[in-house]
Amino acid sequence: MCRWMAWLGQPVLIEELLFNTPHGIVDQSLHARMGAEPTNGDGFGLGWYGQGEGPGIYRSVKPAWGDDNLREIAAHIEAPLFMAHVRAAIGSPVQESNCHPFRRGRWLFVHNGYLGGLHAVRRDLMLAIDPERFADVHGSTDTEIVFHLALTFGLADDPIAALERTVGYIEATARAHGIPDAVQATFGVSDGVTLWAVRYATTGPQRSLFASADPDTIRTLHPENPRFQLLTHDDRLIVSEPFSDLPGIWQEIPAGTAVTVRGGGVLLEHPFRPQVVDAPALAARAGA
Amino acid sequence: MCRWMAWLGQPVLIEELLFNTPHGIVDQSLHARMGAEPTNGDGFGLGWYGQGEGPGIYRSVKPAWGDDNLREIAAHIEAPLFMAHVRAAIGSPVQESNCHPFRRGRWLFVHNGYLGGLHAVRRDLMLAIDPERFADVHGSTDTEIVFHLALTFGLADDPIAALERTVGYIEATARAHGIPDAVQATFGVSDGVTLWAVRYATTGPQRSLFASADPDTIRTLHPENPRFQLLTHDDRLIVSEPFSDLPGIWQEIPAGTAVTVRGGGVLLEHPFRPQVVDAPALAARAGA
Amino acid sequence: MCRWMAWLGQPVLIEELLFNTPHGIVDQSLHARMGAEPTNGDGFGLGWYGQGEGPGIYRSVKPAWGDDNLREIAAHIEAPLFMAHVRAAIGSPVQESNCHPFRRGRWLFVHNGYLGGLHAVRRDLMLAIDPERFADVHGSTDTEIVFHLALTFGLADDPIAALERTVGYIEATARAHGIPDAVQATFGVSDGVTLWAVRYATTGPQRSLFASADPDTIRTLHPENPRFQLLTHDDRLIVSEPFSDLPGIWQEIPAGTAVTVRGGGVLLEHPFRPQVVDAPALAARAGA
Amino acid sequence: MCRWMAWLGQPVLIEELLFNTPHGIVDQSLHARMGAEPTNGDGFGLGWYGQGEGPGIYRSVKPAWGDDNLREIAAHIEAPLFMAHVRAAIGSPVQESNCHPFRRGRWLFVHNGYLGGLHAVRRDLMLAIDPERFADVHGSTDTEIVFHLALTFGLADDPIAALERTVGYIEATARAHGIPDAVQATFGVSDGVTLWAVRYATTGPQRSLFASADPDTIRTLHPENPRFQLLTHDDRLIVSEPFSDLPGIWQEIPAGTAVTVRGGGVLLEHPFRPQVVDAPALAARAGA
Repeated sequence: MCRWMAWLGQPVLIEELLFNTPHGIVDQSLHARMGAEPTNGDGFGLGWYGQGEGPGIYRSVKPAWGDDNLREIAAHIEAPLFMAHVRAAIGSPVQESNCHPFRRGRWLFVHNGYLGGLHAVRRDLMLAIDPERFADVHGSTDTEIVFHLALTFGLADDPIAALERTVGYIEATARAHGIPDAVQATFGVSDGVTLWAVRYATTGPQRSLFASADPDTIRTLHPENPRFQLLTHDDRLIVSEPFSDLPGIWQEIPAGTAVTVRGGGVLLEHPFRPQVVDAPALAARAGA
Repeated sequence: MCRWMAWLGQPVLIEELLFNTPHGIVDQSLHARMGAEPTNGDGFGLGWYGQGEGPGIYRSVKPAWGDDNLREIAAHIEAPLFMAHVRAAIGSPVQESNCHPFRRGRWLFVHNGYLGGLHAVRRDLMLAIDPERFADVHGSTDTEIVFHLALTFGLADDPIAALERTVGYIEATARAHGIPDAVQATFGVSDGVTLWAVRYATTGPQRSLFASADPDTIRTLHPENPRFQLLTHDDRLIVSEPFSDLPGIWQEIPAGTAVTVRGGGVLLEHPFRPQVVDAPALAARAGA
Repeated sequence: MCRWMAWLGQPVLIEELLFNTPHGIVDQSLHARMGAEPTNGDGFGLGWYGQGEGPGIYRSVKPAWGDDNLREIAAHIEAPLFMAHVRAAIGSPVQESNCHPFRRGRWLFVHNGYLGGLHAVRRDLMLAIDPERFADVHGSTDTEIVFHLALTFGLADDPIAALERTVGYIEATARAHGIPDAVQATFGVSDGVTLWAVRYATTGPQRSLFASADPDTIRTLHPENPRFQLLTHDDRLIVSEPFSDLPGIWQEIPAGTAVTVRGGGVLLEHPFRPQVVDAPALAARAGA
Repeated sequence: MCRWMAWLGQPVLIEELLFNTPHGIVDQSLHARMGAEPTNGDGFGLGWYGQGEGPGIYRSVKPAWGDDNLREIAAHIEAPLFMAHVRAAIGSPVQESNCHPFRRGRWLFVHNGYLGGLHAVRRDLMLAIDPERFADVHGSTDTEIVFHLALTFGLADDPIAALERTVGYIEATARAHGIPDAVQATFGVSDGVTLWAVRYATTGPQRSLFASADPDTIRTLHPENPRFQLLTHDDRLIVSEPFSDLPGIWQEIPAGTAVTVRGGGVLLEHPFRPQVVDAPALAARAGA
């Protein structure tokens, strides 16, 4: 159920990480190994920070492996920060407005996982979205609702805290409907400068999530690999599943953890703790 | 902004009315004469009652004039009742979930026109949809909201009365937001037996809508036309704009009017009068 | 590399065999077991003989598993004879004109497999197509070339003999280019009355192909299965891979074999022997 | 039947010329004024020289006016040289492989117009394509054949001379089939440094083609327009039809003329004279 990746580092042609790696995200669209299904063929999306104002987005309902335009774009756009997502739909239609990443202003958002009992909780969740933003929800995925809740709960000020409030609110709502598995998620967020990622589940085994190791370590471990020698201190990848089986390249992000990635190769881990949100205040807001 | 047509009569190959008429709905996708724009190229849909359970739907984001599959389907499906719609998008994405007709059970629904100030009223309108059906809204058009409001207000019992309540509620909501042009619409509805159509606008000039004349009249007026000689007493068309300029073939449906079409060529006109709906009751329901 | 199926028998809703079987062709688009790849997600096609003139075709570049229109069409069209194909592209673009079945007049044609060294032999093969039909090749698959060669070599008079000449000609052409694996193929052909299928390879292991067993046998072996009790003497399936693992339901079509399926459950096997075609005559024709 | 544009000048965000002009090429996809039809909604393509190796291409079967990805790409890619094309199909399918520009190596090619009697001459024309390149023709447009003929006749050495030979060969072939209107065309070609354009017809009125005037002239004529003040000496546009009605901005390229556009605002006109190509030599080559 979906795979995603994010790059923050030196500017690279996007194809380097989408196509020119042994088990990159496009290969994962056809042959994922750690997901619920090997096939993530229900559309995809790419968001990048490069030329022009704010992030660009390319989304398509085609499988990533067969989209010629994705090859073209990836081969002709350089970016220091980008996110790609391949989708395995679970209920909502295969349409561009359901493809990740979602965007608002400078913000991009991707998700792997699901909200439990979505049909039952959708209305309550949408009522908690800032009424001004309500009409900006164009698709029908759970992810877009999570994103707009997070925007409502302060994503632009503190993404991790906003996601903790969002997940807390979703869990409270699900509980009220008797739904035990409220949230199964890895999230990726960026504002074009910093990259945040979350690995969390209300219950049960958590979706996989990995960060690339320190570039020094990678180069030292694999001196024979010319691609790795090009890595700099700035370069970090966050991925749903590793691009290769080489030892020492990837470190698993622990369950219930948020990470912050910044230029200079900074990778900080924090516990991710859903927050109880003041329900009456929200209800009042929703009833406005 | 959109064109639609509906056929109720003897079973015919759908292509007879989509392609084999001089200015049929597919020609109107490229060369509409009475709409706001000549081009209705933002997807289309066809709903028909034939083999299998309930109505079938074929929808595509391609322009109707260029879709080979539509030609195939129209040339190989016979139906006594079908509706086709070509779309000119005004704001919402070009995606299949935004293509008409919309369906629930045996019911099909099409619309030409718009809701004024949709961005402002969308949330309030969606709150009035039966909470059980809230999660069934998959797209982002005004039409799908109208359809689900009408279902909430009793479409299955009395389609015209339900649409009068729906329009009344939308007008009240728009008024509360200071929006004068709440509803501009022609609607088409069917349950597979009967066909209903509405022509109405809160204010300003109304969208065009026509019914085909009595088949006897048509045959008498145009004895030289072999296609017209095939018409039976059962056959009626409702169209956004006439398929031909021939005199005596089409009768304009008056502004502010609903029509009911039944087998045997029955065509009844009724005034369409939006109803004031009990707002507190709705609010209570919405807050449930 | 592709899966296909064909039904000849009592008229059925197409969905019965596309969706309502445990491992039908749509499931095989995602989870094929006997093909080179489990995924056949590069478009699909359905051809059926029902209402209207000649066979209808619905083709799409979407994966079969995610195409809502395919579900609709399959649920609302009944046919006594139809063929469906899910594609795994190997080189040629994912576009409708490359989706099977191909059609000419009453004839439909599907293929699983490939022509070896297609890039090298394409020109020579196309030169052998009847010059009058040359411009009818709209796509870029090997299959469409095979189909037009077979039409040139008399498909309409004797499909199996025409395919034997076609394969013989392709093998001779490949040999001249030093290509050993000229043809890897299962073919399916129909004129709306009879169904023909071929299993053949110039060299190496052959693609899988199966026929459903005699309905009496199936019903007797599985008396508990209510679906099987509905089978009549007229019903036969030809499939790239079985829909189920139940014993006694499927019989493998031997390597190097053509079969003819007719109403009344007739299933005849013949050896398939490529014919040497008079090369000078063809060259003269090609040079015309 | 199609509109195209090409920019050579200072690097600009592509959207400046696709979307941010009053009657740019995207507007022309819906409202062309000088073409055979106002609607060019059968797909489009964009080719640009920017980051990465060689030109990038984005092609889609959607109408240009409704493609969100085109807006994204145009808003986030800067290029000093690019070509865009909106298509009105006349016979060949709406598929990406039929969208312009066509590409080989560093070369891009676009076309407005048609080859007369294409069905009759297609085979002879394809036989004259370098046999090594024959299998590179992936679509079914006349334009792709013209492009591969021009490559065969030396496009990479002298584009205009190669097109003169190409047109001469097509005219000779058409004549042999009794077709009078062999070629109706404006062509655009680039190698990433220079831009060439041709306006020519075997007979009858010629398709429109314009070049932007000298930037000094434009700035002097319209001192009030802030966009025009940004023009430099390097900037030139070639367009099927003008983006605006402002006087002095556009100069018509005369009938039967080729132009060469280079950096520094160079715009050279030459007569375009189809060349008689040695037919026996070609025949020998084709028979190889």
